[in-house]
Parts: sequence; C-alpha cells; structure tokens
Amino acid sequence: MRIVVLAGGIGGARFLRGLKAAAPDADITVIGNTGDDIHLFGLKVCPDLDTVMYTLGGGINEEQGWGRSGETFRVKEELAAYGVGPEWFGLGDRDFATHIVRTQMLSAGYPLSDVTEALCARWKPGVRLLPMSDDRIETHVAVDEDGERKAIHFQEYWVRLRASLPAHAVVPVGADQAKPAPGVLDAIAEADVVLFPPSNPVVSIGTILAVPGIREAIADAGVPVVGLSPIVGDAPVRGMADKVLAAVGVEATATAVAQHYGSGLLDGWLVDSVDRAAVAEVEAAGIRCRAVPLMMTDVDATAAMAREALALAEEVRA
Amino acid sequence: MRIVVLAGGIGGARFLRGLKAAAPDADITVIGNTGDDIHLFGLKVCPDLDTVMYTLGGGINEEQGWGRSGETFRVKEELAAYGVGPEWFGLGDRDFATHIVRTQMLSAGYPLSDVTEALCARWKPGVRLLPMSDDRIETHVAVDEDGERKAIHFQEYWVRLRASLPAHAVVPVGADQAKPAPGVLDAIAEADVVLFPPSNPVVSIGTILAVPGIREAIADAGVPVVGLSPIVGDAPVRGMADKVLAAVGVEATATAVAQHYGSGLLDGWLVDSVDRAAVAEVEAAGIRCRAVPLMMTDVDATAAMAREALALAEEVRA
Repeated sequence: MRIVVLAGGIGGARFLRGLKAAAPDADITVIGNTGDDIHLFGLKVCPDLDTVMYTLGGGINEEQGWGRSGETFRVKEELAAYGVGPEWFGLGDRDFATHIVRTQMLSAGYPLSDVTEALCARWKPGVRLLPMSDDRIETHVAVDEDGERKAIHFQEYWVRLRASLPAHAVVPVGADQAKPAPGVLDAIAEADVVLFPPSNPVVSIGTILAVPGIREAIADAGVPVVGLSPIVGDAPVRGMADKVLAAVGVEATATAVAQHYGSGLLDGWLVDSVDRAAVAEVEAAGIRCRAVPLMMTDVDATAAMAREALALAEEVRA
Repeated sequence: MRIVVLAGGIGGARFLRGLKAAAPDADITVIGNTGDDIHLFGLKVCPDLDTVMYTLGGGINEEQGWGRSGETFRVKEELAAYGVGPEWFGLGDRDFATHIVRTQMLSAGYPLSDVTEALCARWKPGVRLLPMSDDRIETHVAVDEDGERKAIHFQEYWVRLRASLPAHAVVPVGADQAKPAPGVLDAIAEADVVLFPPSNPVVSIGTILAVPGIREAIADAGVPVVGLSPIVGDAPVRGMADKVLAAVGVEATATAVAQHYGSGLLDGWLVDSVDRAAVAEVEAAGIRCRAVPLMMTDVDATAAMAREALALAEEVRA
C-alpha cells in the first residue's frame, strides 16, 4: 500500500511513528512543510523536516518533541558571547551539524530535496521524506507590535512571541511562485491513500496545500483522503493552532477544521471521542466522520489512530 | 611607541603575549597571515588570526597552542556521522561559533578586516589585529602523492600530511592580485619599529610579504626592522618550517633565514644562544645580529626576547 502523508513538525512526526507501526509494510511518502524554514546565523534551518527525520530516525529529544536527544549548547553560548542572536531559537550543537551540512550542500547547488535525501541516508527514517518544494517559501505572520502592524517570520511569532499576539494574517511568502519538489506530484498520483495527520491546518498542512499543484493533485488523485483533527474539545491538542486558525477565520473546533479543508479535498475525518457531537456536523458537510481516541500518548495509541484512519479510508473507498 | 608585528599562528601569538608584557604601553598593530585560511563545511576558518585573537584574549587552549580552551567536539562528531569531513581538521564547538559568525558577516558583505575587528570586540586582544588582506589568498603546496604531482591546500599539507612529503613549491595563490587590508600600509608607515616574531618565514611571514605593497612599505618605512629566528640549532623550535624552507631553497639555519629576508628588508636579527656562531655570518650579510635565549618557555622568557628585539631596534636606530 502506498501512503502519502502531509506533515508538519511534532504532530506529524509522532503520527508517522504510529503509522509505521500500524502499517509496517506500507510504502510511505511524507510531504514535509518547509514554510517554517528559517535562516539563522547564515545557516538554513528546516524545523519540520528535521523533526520528522529525527523522530523517525531515533535522534529526537522525546520530551521536547523537537531537536536532538542528549543535546548541548556550546555553539549557541559562544554565539551569544559574540552578541550574535537570536537567542530565542534553541539550536543545539548536534542540531547545528545538520544545518551546517544542509547549508553547505545548498551552497554547492543541490536542491533541498537532494539535501534532505542525503541527510536521511544517515537517519534512515523508514519513509521517503520530500520537502513540499525546493523553492524558498517562508510563512510570515502579520501582528501589531510596538504600535505598528508588521509581518514577522512564523518562527518569531511562534517561538519568540509564543503566539501571544493576535495573528491578523498568515502568508506563505513565495508559495504562489513555487513548484512542488520533484517526486511530490508523482507520489500523490500513485498513492492508495492520502493522510493529513493532526498537524497545524494553517501553517503546516495549509502551507503545503498552498504550493500550486499539490491541492489539485490530491483532489484529483481519486483515492481516499483522510485527516485527523488536531483540535480536541475545542482546543489544540498541542501547540497554539487556535491562534493561526483565527487569522484565517476558522473556529478552533474539529468541525470547523474539517469544513476548512472541505469536502472537495477531504473524504474522511477523525475526531476525538470527546467530540462525538461533531460527527453529524462533519458528515453533513459531506465528509465521512468517526469519533475515536485521538491522543498520541504513546506509539501504541498513535498506531491505533493510524489504523482508524486507514480503516476509514477503506470505508470511503468501498 | 608604535610597533608593527607580522604574525603567523602559534609562534606569533606567543611572541605577542611576551611583547605586550615587555612594552605594556606600546601601540601594537598585528598584521596577521591569512594564507592558511580555509573553507571547511562551508565556513571560513582563519587559523592564524584566531590563534592571535584567542591567545591574547585569554581563550586559547594553552597546551595545544591553537583552538579554544575547554573545547568539546559535538558538532564535528555529528558531521562525521553524516559522513562529512574532513576529519583531520579539529574544529571544536566553541571554535565553530567563531567561524559561523565570521561566515555570516562575510556573506552579508563585510570585509574580513571589519569581521576581525568585530570578533576582537569580544576578545579584546590588546592589540589592533589586521588581516594582511581582505582578498582571498590561499597557500598551496605542491607535493607528489599517489604517483602524481598535485597542489594541495597548506592546511592539508600541514595538518593531514603533517608535512611528511617533500614540498616542491609553496604558492600563495591569489597574493599577486591582492591588496593590503585597510590600515596595513598606514600602520607600517607610522610605525617606530617593525618586528618579525619567530613565525614560519615561508608560509606565515613570507605570505604576508607576498601581498604587493607590504614588503615595499616595510623596506621604505625608514624604521628598524628586527626579526627573531624560528630556527634554533638547525631545527625549527616548533612546527615543520624546515619542510617549507626546503621548498624555497633555504637551509633550515638561523643564518639562512636572515639571508632569505635579506638586508634590504631586515636591519636586526636575533639568534638563539646556541647559534652564537651565526652572529658573524649574519652581520657579514649586513644585518646586525645578537645571540640571546630564544625559547618561549613562558611569558617572562618571551618578554625578555621581546625586550632584546626592541633593544636591538634601538641599537640599529642609533
């Protein structure tokens, strides 16, 4: 079975670990969000791709959900001693090596997809990890700060400000001119099922869908497209998705997120057991819906979620 | 008193520490060798400038003579795990931060002289440290390896091969097109004395003198130019200077090195007490010479050497 998964960072990566356990023989292609990529200290950092790669490759800081296990911060301390920031972005020494290798390869002219493949040759994540695009796309967020409206990088909004200010707009800058990375459209065309993990619907999956051609390819693939709600009981399971949902005028409810994707794209939707009342609403929107436990407390619980998603896909197909 | 010092790495840096102790009120400008600069992992590494900066700024690994004290090697280990080398160049985590800051500033368009000043704002070396040039100059060494003659980067010759192969030529690639960095010629023109520490006469001081305009400025400055022999008892005090001296047809003796600089450039020359016999030879070449202890065993011994050099300069002047 060929499965295509659109993934952001922590939520996507943890879901993928469950999916691999639920479908060990499946051929999984991950289309990773690159909208939160950022240049720091002259290095290209791809937080979502790395979170997937480290999580599936056994190098992740489990407690934190991102970054490397057993991490130290000597380089960052030294950069601070030089007065060079930002200090709000926690790059560890091991993590730095990934960004150094990536930046060196990009400078040598390799596209991000080749670079990602080269990094994965070490991590062996057990999935094919593709960036959504080789072109530079940066999600910017419009906020009012210090009395003026300004557009700041998503990471600055998310990490420095911890989404404490209202987001007036979320714009994947460069997306309209971008092309899907090599392999992305083919993987979708050849997929038996497409899954949306409980990743952020705006800045993770929404950004991937903003690359011209990807949304259309999924809608036209003629295979079940099933998503899992990142909202449980009217709040994000983790992260601050409600802040960016508000920016695009979407309520932070399981139903509203399903309607946001829409029945033109989504065939099936899993909501958490506590949101049982949403099932009828979602189905009324033309999207088949089931209420199941959606808390990724461990790999077993996550594998059960993945099995429910695959079962719903088969139900849709039949 | 305004002193200009031409410095390579370890020998130059240690001499400077002694000079500062000997002449605490002097205004010292260091013209640093950049011929052994190298790009590693996409980062610009300036070994000699950093050795001077770390040594005078209190950050040096004292035992090793280069690199940072209390160093760790997480980044390098990770790079090796990615299969990315070279592994023969020992960059520590703290040191990496310096190269990251430097590379970021260079990429932003700042010349190396501005970058060096910015880095020194942290280290406060107590001297004005100028790169010999803002232009890229790389010393290459011609060797016969694997049955063919090839030109390799000086660092590869020195660090990877440990100068174990004969050097057929030493070429400061790019020097002929380079200009002295801003401030270099002015510092020489305004100097009261110019000193050549016991640095490598070929790949350190020789490379600095290869930048068009620097040798001429020193020869024309009309102030005493005094050097200290890096060769004691027919062998380099440290390093493998004999290997590169052979490449330029110069014997590894205190006399031959003085003659190599020549009386058109050099007014005074200190040889070690064991080389007392060289004094007459050097003076026969028109260079005033004294035999004094030249082992930089500690700061006091090095300060004594610096005082001897300054005394010889005054003798020349008178």
